[in-house]
Amino acid sequence: MEKYMCEAHAFLLNNDKEEMILENVDQVDVEGDEVKLVNIFGEQKIIKARIKSFSVAKNRIVLEPV
Amino acid sequence: MEKYMCEAHAFLLNNDKEEMILENVDQVDVEGDEVKLVNIFGEQKIIKARIKSFSVAKNRIVLEPV
Repeated sequence: MEKYMCEAHAFLLNNDKEEMILENVDQVDVEGDEVKLVNIFGEQKIIKARIKSFSVAKNRIVLEPV
Repeated sequence: MEKYMCEAHAFLLNNDKEEMILENVDQVDVEGDEVKLVNIFGEQKIIKARIKSFSVAKNRIVLEPV
């Protein structure tokens, strides 16, 4: 069965600008004040940030530094 | 142009169980210790919680109470 893969792109707010930090994000985990992002290629980024918003329709995850 | 809509379901961790709180979530916004969920039908829920994880592929947003 074919399944459409939803993916999202992660942005970090930096002086009111949204800076793309990881594309094709598949998994987001929050551990204390860190956010771990993993994309569909297995690339990982751990950012000292918190999730500000997530738009499923626009495929955008916005983080802000803590 | 037809566009596939990605949607996610939101769960709240409750004594290690995940309890579904809102289906077809389209937008998530974090304001302090509250998470606001809006679904594709315009239903809203505001929960005193934080985002624990988000799996894009599995369409699951998991919140935990604060």
